[in-house]
Amino acid sequence: MILQHVTWSEIEAYLRRSTGVMIPIGSNEQHGPNGPIGTDAICAEAIARRAAEDADILVGPTLAVTTAQFNLRFPGTVSLRSTTLMAVVTDYVRSLAGQGFRRFYFLNAHGANIAPLNAAFHDLYAEGLGEIRCRLRSWWEYPETNALRQSLYGAWEGMHATPSEIAIAHHAVPSTRRPAPASRPEAIDPVALREMAGDRHFDADHHRARFPDGRISSDQSLIEPGHGERLLDIAAKESRADYQRFLAET
Amino acid sequence: MILQHVTWSEIEAYLRRSTGVMIPIGSNEQHGPNGPIGTDAICAEAIARRAAEDADILVGPTLAVTTAQFNLRFPGTVSLRSTTLMAVVTDYVRSLAGQGFRRFYFLNAHGANIAPLNAAFHDLYAEGLGEIRCRLRSWWEYPETNALRQSLYGAWEGMHATPSEIAIAHHAVPSTRRPAPASRPEAIDPVALREMAGDRHFDADHHRARFPDGRISSDQSLIEPGHGERLLDIAAKESRADYQRFLAET
Amino acid sequence: MILQHVTWSEIEAYLRRSTGVMIPIGSNEQHGPNGPIGTDAICAEAIARRAAEDADILVGPTLAVTTAQFNLRFPGTVSLRSTTLMAVVTDYVRSLAGQGFRRFYFLNAHGANIAPLNAAFHDLYAEGLGEIRCRLRSWWEYPETNALRQSLYGAWEGMHATPSEIAIAHHAVPSTRRPAPASRPEAIDPVALREMAGDRHFDADHHRARFPDGRISSDQSLIEPGHGERLLDIAAKESRADYQRFLAET
Amino acid sequence: MILQHVTWSEIEAYLRRSTGVMIPIGSNEQHGPNGPIGTDAICAEAIARRAAEDADILVGPTLAVTTAQFNLRFPGTVSLRSTTLMAVVTDYVRSLAGQGFRRFYFLNAHGANIAPLNAAFHDLYAEGLGEIRCRLRSWWEYPETNALRQSLYGAWEGMHATPSEIAIAHHAVPSTRRPAPASRPEAIDPVALREMAGDRHFDADHHRARFPDGRISSDQSLIEPGHGERLLDIAAKESRADYQRFLAET
Amino acid sequence: MILQHVTWSEIEAYLRRSTGVMIPIGSNEQHGPNGPIGTDAICAEAIARRAAEDADILVGPTLAVTTAQFNLRFPGTVSLRSTTLMAVVTDYVRSLAGQGFRRFYFLNAHGANIAPLNAAFHDLYAEGLGEIRCRLRSWWEYPETNALRQSLYGAWEGMHATPSEIAIAHHAVPSTRRPAPASRPEAIDPVALREMAGDRHFDADHHRARFPDGRISSDQSLIEPGHGERLLDIAAKESRADYQRFLAET
Amino acid sequence: MILQHVTWSEIEAYLRRSTGVMIPIGSNEQHGPNGPIGTDAICAEAIARRAAEDADILVGPTLAVTTAQFNLRFPGTVSLRSTTLMAVVTDYVRSLAGQGFRRFYFLNAHGANIAPLNAAFHDLYAEGLGEIRCRLRSWWEYPETNALRQSLYGAWEGMHATPSEIAIAHHAVPSTRRPAPASRPEAIDPVALREMAGDRHFDADHHRARFPDGRISSDQSLIEPGHGERLLDIAAKESRADYQRFLAET
Repeated sequence: MILQHVTWSEIEAYLRRSTGVMIPIGSNEQHGPNGPIGTDAICAEAIARRAAEDADILVGPTLAVTTAQFNLRFPGTVSLRSTTLMAVVTDYVRSLAGQGFRRFYFLNAHGANIAPLNAAFHDLYAEGLGEIRCRLRSWWEYPETNALRQSLYGAWEGMHATPSEIAIAHHAVPSTRRPAPASRPEAIDPVALREMAGDRHFDADHHRARFPDGRISSDQSLIEPGHGERLLDIAAKESRADYQRFLAET
Repeated sequence: MILQHVTWSEIEAYLRRSTGVMIPIGSNEQHGPNGPIGTDAICAEAIARRAAEDADILVGPTLAVTTAQFNLRFPGTVSLRSTTLMAVVTDYVRSLAGQGFRRFYFLNAHGANIAPLNAAFHDLYAEGLGEIRCRLRSWWEYPETNALRQSLYGAWEGMHATPSEIAIAHHAVPSTRRPAPASRPEAIDPVALREMAGDRHFDADHHRARFPDGRISSDQSLIEPGHGERLLDIAAKESRADYQRFLAET
Repeated sequence: MILQHVTWSEIEAYLRRSTGVMIPIGSNEQHGPNGPIGTDAICAEAIARRAAEDADILVGPTLAVTTAQFNLRFPGTVSLRSTTLMAVVTDYVRSLAGQGFRRFYFLNAHGANIAPLNAAFHDLYAEGLGEIRCRLRSWWEYPETNALRQSLYGAWEGMHATPSEIAIAHHAVPSTRRPAPASRPEAIDPVALREMAGDRHFDADHHRARFPDGRISSDQSLIEPGHGERLLDIAAKESRADYQRFLAET
Repeated sequence: MILQHVTWSEIEAYLRRSTGVMIPIGSNEQHGPNGPIGTDAICAEAIARRAAEDADILVGPTLAVTTAQFNLRFPGTVSLRSTTLMAVVTDYVRSLAGQGFRRFYFLNAHGANIAPLNAAFHDLYAEGLGEIRCRLRSWWEYPETNALRQSLYGAWEGMHATPSEIAIAHHAVPSTRRPAPASRPEAIDPVALREMAGDRHFDADHHRARFPDGRISSDQSLIEPGHGERLLDIAAKESRADYQRFLAET
Repeated sequence: MILQHVTWSEIEAYLRRSTGVMIPIGSNEQHGPNGPIGTDAICAEAIARRAAEDADILVGPTLAVTTAQFNLRFPGTVSLRSTTLMAVVTDYVRSLAGQGFRRFYFLNAHGANIAPLNAAFHDLYAEGLGEIRCRLRSWWEYPETNALRQSLYGAWEGMHATPSEIAIAHHAVPSTRRPAPASRPEAIDPVALREMAGDRHFDADHHRARFPDGRISSDQSLIEPGHGERLLDIAAKESRADYQRFLAET
Repeated sequence: MILQHVTWSEIEAYLRRSTGVMIPIGSNEQHGPNGPIGTDAICAEAIARRAAEDADILVGPTLAVTTAQFNLRFPGTVSLRSTTLMAVVTDYVRSLAGQGFRRFYFLNAHGANIAPLNAAFHDLYAEGLGEIRCRLRSWWEYPETNALRQSLYGAWEGMHATPSEIAIAHHAVPSTRRPAPASRPEAIDPVALREMAGDRHFDADHHRARFPDGRISSDQSLIEPGHGERLLDIAAKESRADYQRFLAET
């Protein structure tokens, strides 16, 4: 069930069955030569909605614009300060907690969201809203999904504008499809990549100079027809199960 | 052109042709017995995208969750504090202004957005970002669109969960269609309605007690097939023209 | 009764009769060649105090410095950020709400106050202070007052440093009287004026360049002896009645 | 020269002669059985304006509502949070500094303003607005003024709702005059009084319980005709001189 | 070199040799039955100072009070909101960046610091302070240190009040030594522990109920004489090397 | 008892005996040619810990980095904005108040802390945390301590980097000892010094130009062996007594 597509009385009825909600969170930032700027929001929303197709899961409105300051030198990127994103998440959770929601599962598609969301969760818990719980999970963490993207692209999955996320986005929104660039980007060694996990990049001038076309060690030419759908299906299956485990935790 | 569906280099090219952007802004709040919670965001986004179909207009990511505290007692409503929404708008505009954008046209579908956005614009101007300009326009202000909705629904257009906005939302996202309720709500006199313009409502407890099913003087049973499309078309046409005038202002 | 001129026990007694308060709100910004910088605060305060002369109305301390960033290039203008003004209004209302006040009527004399105040009201309502209500009313909205200023000055009432507000200010504080400038300013067409309603101006550099002496389409030479008093009297009469309706609303 | 009573071009001319401004700052809080709630704002404004009568001093708009949380249980008191007052002072100084003002002299009449203003000054200096300087001076600090109030009232000058401030307020705004209460309040020993300097009081419930009629060790029955004028004159003379020294400092 | 123990001219000289600084960051929260509340701050500071003994490393003042809301029901815990900690880190980095520092290495000893610090770094980078870089590294991440603690305590290293951190704290500040509790706490399975990485705990009431003596799956009785020193030495060695790599990165 | 050196159950037991806590607060700023940057934090912490040696006093973690913007042009100084420091103090007090603490005694060693702390106290009291009380006391205010430093150094005690504070710091942390500079700084007249009380300095550029080596009218060559210990002992004795009076106040 997509929250924004139903009526308030349908949510009132849902609350009698469940106090959980799945919230897709992406970003609005450059995704290399052929990835749409909204790749992360498209992926998070597509996975969440697919997950909800076969289960009584409520999917809230997608947080599509988040923290991505390091990409601001690439036109089209829109970035919230971390403190702004934290205020948004706080108000979002407060609103629903006031109506009886208790479990907030953020299905994440953007590394730089991890820090501000976890920071915001602590401030939310300290507000005394009752026994609420928040969890952020990035879709690439799911074990089978992770195994699939590694098997398809290996080291060329890279770090940003990855073939897996672009495959999903191109599949979910066909109008975003663009041909892969002719050449590979510079390969970054795994230690350096690990240092960037969670998008721990530096300032925007440095970032554009370091990664001139926006990709980080990712090869989009490896995407083949059907990849996007397979990745989406498996991520949706795992997110559904993970969400249900979250709700069942005591 | 939908910003989040294209690549950063397409935006870079666009910036050489135009420094304007149209930003849909809605809300996520109850819309009565048969209107989807996302009605306002759906309307704003649908109108903006239709407007951009026949012109070189860039449509940015929709602000779908905004200020709607008065509806928080209706489950499913998510509301940002005014100050949070202002921070979001500030960061959004700052991000694009840093890339060369200069004209920000917010296509609005929710009365309670008007105050925080105009308040935020002043703080933005005072930051010295250069000669930027922001404008907020609500789709029901366009003269022909306004005339059409008055001609279709008269006094029963009402104030909230209006037949015109629900007709557009049902047309734009068919899965949101729900049958109209069997009965009309209480009719509110025009003076009292005018007092509520811009959603100048009071607190959420008062609001739910005052409007028990969420509608304000609006009769959804008047919607007929084709209304949504006609309203969408005319609002899109007028928003396109109004946006172009905005860009042409000296 | 002027709040700051009486003792706390007089307010304690008043609270047993009424939970309403009228709060004048102006601005501190240039008002053209012959209007005092404090025109708006002078007008709001004078109207409110006159309104309270013949009725049991409590007038709170005037908010004399508010949001006017567009006039900052004119020396003497002092502007609060919108967020600062919102914090002031929030604290003001919270203070009195904690003592039992429930109805807050802001008698306004400055267009740019409308957005931040309405934005602040929503955040106040969401705080759970009880069933409080806030209303902002600009004195030029009252129908008879509006009719009078139109009859006196027609199109040359203009938009800023209007003859009506300067007539009131000169009447209320005689030491502020300065002769009208010899020439009229540029006439602005009504559509463009309407676009500026609520002081939706741009940045301060643009504003001073666009309106070099500070006036917007207003002719101060039309002011004749007695105008100020007539305008003040009628605005006071209508504000008193409107305030009493506000308190009587259920 | 009273800033809000003159035109912007008069300020423009003044700036060619001086970059200083004197800003009265008071409070809006209970002042005992016969003192007006606005006592502090009335005193600060009256002293500043008298000081400016015989010298080329610009007096800015009075900050009449400030921090007074400890008096909130006395109806009529309006208190800003310290952080709100600091934002107000910051915006006030920033506005004028952007126009060329460099010396900001706050003529203070309320102990609890001292901490937030000095705190705000540091944040202002750190903003890099140029070589600005701020000073806060409380009128009772001036040596001759202090000697006079001690000679008139001795220990019964007390700490709050002092005869000297009420004498000035009653003189400056005759309509605020109320008879002195029949009895003296509890006498507080000087050590305890010193501990409260700068209004270092505790919470509002404690404060009302501790000082039931609002006075702190002050006897208003000692006020005699002419006291208010004498105190006002001498404070004005000393503030004028102190302000001129401030401007002359290198 | 310990920043707070030297003079400003020594820092001025240091800046001609290096623009890096190592900043210990801990927490002030319960650490089980025999761990001092300041365990994390003690560990971070001890490791950093040891690292600096044999190299030209500047160690800044320790951030000893940070975010630990989940432990607030255990007396003695002091927690900053995430937003407060972010403001502290921002001001700290800004201060030194204004003097020429460019590389900020936070030596961390508390999981819940990771999110707010990484969130703050992004907002700092977006401020345009120049090409600064921040890194947070937790001492238990260093490979040899991690191997040692695993070899000493295995699964009973646990998650909070770990024997390794208590061993270091007891070694570094002998007065904090307390005997190990007689019994082991509940053993938590590794999957559940992983879910808590980065201290992703819930609210304080839940936390105290879940972990009644404060430990999370850790057995302090395994600590033997000499462990603290060995762990401290190896962590210091690795932090020194990691810091130097950070400074050498291009 | 040093809070961060004991376990949470020791604090739980302490709370059954006392609800008071002594919190040392210093600064991290230049202290002239031979004073350590951490002088104030070292002094405050040393005095508080010595005071607690002979009494059942709990000493909380030291606030070692505070507001010192005027010294930012001297490398090594780290300054929090006043608003940041206020947030830190607020969270610190809130944390402990939630556990039952009621009396917060800040033992201060830095003039510029006085304003933000007193400002923060008012906002804390207004939060309704219960009947808490905060007090800030600077060690040089204690009468015997003050007499001793005057007797030792007379006018050359000066205003910043005073011989008394450097004597204490050198005594408390011997590794910070540096020889006194060969020459005296400029002597500042007492009236000018008084104007700077509470560190009411201006911006950092002005401050470094005005006081090129950081000292303000203080002569470190007057320090003799034993001074530091004597000053520390007497300040500790007086702070202990003053703290106990604070706890005994009704």
